[in-house]
Amino acid sequence: MKIIDGKKISNQIKDEIKKEVDSLIASNQKVPHLAAVLVGEDGASLTYVGSKVRSCKQVGFDSTLIRLPSTITESSLIEEIDKLNNNKLIDGFIVQLPLPKHIDEEKILMAIKPEKDVDGFHPTNFGKMALNMDTFIPATPFGIIELLKRYNIETSGKHTVVIGRSHIVGRPISILMNSKREAGDSTVTVVHSRTKNLEFYTKSADILVSALGIPEFVKASMVKNDVVIIDVGITRVEDSSNEKGYILKGDVDFESVKNRASYITPVPGGVGPMTIAMLLKNTLLSKSLSKDK
Amino acid sequence: MKIIDGKKISNQIKDEIKKEVDSLIASNQKVPHLAAVLVGEDGASLTYVGSKVRSCKQVGFDSTLIRLPSTITESSLIEEIDKLNNNKLIDGFIVQLPLPKHIDEEKILMAIKPEKDVDGFHPTNFGKMALNMDTFIPATPFGIIELLKRYNIETSGKHTVVIGRSHIVGRPISILMNSKREAGDSTVTVVHSRTKNLEFYTKSADILVSALGIPEFVKASMVKNDVVIIDVGITRVEDSSNEKGYILKGDVDFESVKNRASYITPVPGGVGPMTIAMLLKNTLLSKSLSKDK
Repeated sequence: MKIIDGKKISNQIKDEIKKEVDSLIASNQKVPHLAAVLVGEDGASLTYVGSKVRSCKQVGFDSTLIRLPSTITESSLIEEIDKLNNNKLIDGFIVQLPLPKHIDEEKILMAIKPEKDVDGFHPTNFGKMALNMDTFIPATPFGIIELLKRYNIETSGKHTVVIGRSHIVGRPISILMNSKREAGDSTVTVVHSRTKNLEFYTKSADILVSALGIPEFVKASMVKNDVVIIDVGITRVEDSSNEKGYILKGDVDFESVKNRASYITPVPGGVGPMTIAMLLKNTLLSKSLSKDK
Repeated sequence: MKIIDGKKISNQIKDEIKKEVDSLIASNQKVPHLAAVLVGEDGASLTYVGSKVRSCKQVGFDSTLIRLPSTITESSLIEEIDKLNNNKLIDGFIVQLPLPKHIDEEKILMAIKPEKDVDGFHPTNFGKMALNMDTFIPATPFGIIELLKRYNIETSGKHTVVIGRSHIVGRPISILMNSKREAGDSTVTVVHSRTKNLEFYTKSADILVSALGIPEFVKASMVKNDVVIIDVGITRVEDSSNEKGYILKGDVDFESVKNRASYITPVPGGVGPMTIAMLLKNTLLSKSLSKDK
């Protein structure tokens, strides 16, 4: 069994990005600039955004954090987004989710200019991805593809089973791995809450991608020998023995499944760290695309 | 075994559309107007477009056929598309594919205003579909969904196997049937040219959608009893005994498979006739959306 070390790979990617930034600086060009919009005071959101901003510094990007009160109206938020859409210094931006309940997330998403949507959540970008056109790929599935590539894991002709059909992980990774592309050409099955006889599918998986959010749901008895396990789940589970009061658990019962798997991502340290690295990669891509225009 | 009668259902849908057009006329409103752009003289394309125009007449729509020479430049074609984008009398239009080789189909697709893209091929519409937002659904998968609904075929929790991952059939139908929606909630597997051990998947299918284009590829031995068969394939096969010199064959060996199936679409007369009916439905939808604006 081999551990897929997402932390190591994400650091490699950040180093690669930093080198590109250094060469931009050396040739007197503007460095990429990522902005993040954070509405309200949600603790987890603050942590995520904070870590995105720190990662920008790490690779030499400029970054801007725009904090707005949770009482902001939908139309004022759209005005803020329009400023970012029109600000030529900003290469890409994200609006941290979730948003307060009085704001329609779909409307906000639609207000973002696709050319700056480095999260890849706008329908135009999602559609381009599904139609195999060049675009921003959402960070988490993009990170999974990158892990498969860098560990030389064969996907062509393999049976990939994806647990979950969310718009940010399950659906895009199922489309990407089914497409004619690197780390693609898989036979893909998507299972979900309505699936009957789930184990029939998971047991036939050569590659199992779990993006469900139920801690330790996948047991050794549900997979076959030499399966490749990509565990996207990350749930806080209470643990008084830990000073934070919780520990992070994946969808996969790591201790039992690892002995069956040929490759497995740990939680934390697997898919998680890749997400920010791929967001930075999308921002760099946006910068180089705007230069070409 | 029950035959899924696409011809009958498509006529029902056309009747329903005609009634809506009649009530528009009765209240002095403009009827929907579909335009079709045909570049060159390809025989099959002429037949398809001709039949779309005739169907418009049948339901009381206005229609415009714009014929352009195969020598037209890409930029002149984009100018023609822009005229249609800006023509307030046109509710929707299609550009008949394939286009001459010197024209980049992707560029043409991107030039169509998503609000008038009644084929549902533009990435913005495709992305909206994949993200479960309201939009135009491509006619062939839309027709399949409609057949499943009108025959009350249960899809939730069933294993749907889709053969083929094309952008106009395989990919969209796999997304739709996997989504939380009517005729959705299936566990979906997409198999394709790179799939190993294809029969393992087809034999476990409760619903088999074949969009491959190889005549009589699916044999009785490849499916289980009571399977629902949706045959999207339609290939001309030489047949000197027929006055046209060819007959149409589906992907499924109908004579052998029909005895195993609980439901089956014939070729011709199954999915085929639904395509134009759903294009008309999209045009009607576009008309009513533009009224709401």
